[in-house]
Amino acid sequence: MTTTVTTTVTRDATPDVTVALNDVDLEAVGTLASAIIDDPARGATNWNASVRWAGGFRSHATIREFEPIQSDEPHGLGGTDVAPNPVEQLLAALGNCLVVGYAANASARGIELRDLRIELGGDLDLHTFLGLRQGNAGFESITATVQIDSDATAEELAELHAKVTTTSPVGHTLARAVPVTIELA
Amino acid sequence: MTTTVTTTVTRDATPDVTVALNDVDLEAVGTLASAIIDDPARGATNWNASVRWAGGFRSHATIREFEPIQSDEPHGLGGTDVAPNPVEQLLAALGNCLVVGYAANASARGIELRDLRIELGGDLDLHTFLGLRQGNAGFESITATVQIDSDATAEELAELHAKVTTTSPVGHTLARAVPVTIELA
Repeated sequence: MTTTVTTTVTRDATPDVTVALNDVDLEAVGTLASAIIDDPARGATNWNASVRWAGGFRSHATIREFEPIQSDEPHGLGGTDVAPNPVEQLLAALGNCLVVGYAANASARGIELRDLRIELGGDLDLHTFLGLRQGNAGFESITATVQIDSDATAEELAELHAKVTTTSPVGHTLARAVPVTIELA
Repeated sequence: MTTTVTTTVTRDATPDVTVALNDVDLEAVGTLASAIIDDPARGATNWNASVRWAGGFRSHATIREFEPIQSDEPHGLGGTDVAPNPVEQLLAALGNCLVVGYAANASARGIELRDLRIELGGDLDLHTFLGLRQGNAGFESITATVQIDSDATAEELAELHAKVTTTSPVGHTLARAVPVTIELA
């Protein structure tokens, strides 16, 4: 992330005690939002990953200083099945993104979450990937089913859900046609 | 993956010695392709992930029996920064997917790869995610730059590249508008 938030938050000598509902740091989110309201250009962020082939269908993706994300294919697809495959990783990214949306927006609304689980599935036809026909090599559809354990009312949860689904970065990336440029160096 | 390949490959008593170029199991890929040619319905696959919230913006995605993929957000976005965030994971999935495409198609063409690296980047404006305006919360654009170390000619590499970019499952998923259904259980 190239955007660094440097806005100073002025604190009282005796700051308010902030209860971090759902363990979410709403103050940090609010500080970022204020910084972007003050200077909209700061909303522009850039994200990166570096991937290196490791033989066969194995590879690993390095993101900042974190342990690389390992990748492989199942035996049936010619891999050695030592790690999730890329389309599974994509579903994982969607689920992890939705979690952030629910946690952030629940906290902002004062909704306490006891548990949150998301089951994701996607249908994909292998004909195009295997070169058997031209067409869509990607997911034909993706479904996420969200289970929330909370004392919030059904109406509150429905409003939370609507907010999350209309503001999800990975959700929007998948549901929209994104310009993807792949070039040989 | 729900498709299980059960096609039997008949072997001679003295099988050919197969050199696994790039350590890719082309026989497995060929067996799968043959099975799908025989029964196109077997091209239909379904992939899954289960995500569970771990407090704050942390979560983990479980895929089959593998170690879960951890997720968090940077401090500036309100997280505790213990793992890559979901949009970074999405770039990782694209890079890992392209690797499979290059390795598979290079091997099928007899191109030996010495090294293969992919740098990925994506631009994303935070206004929508933060609720500051309506619009696209996702990546505005994604770029992958591929470095291949090989003795193949520039023309061979260009053909390989064209094949990979038109058959990438994650590439197509991102470049196309996929129906994404997110529902509360």
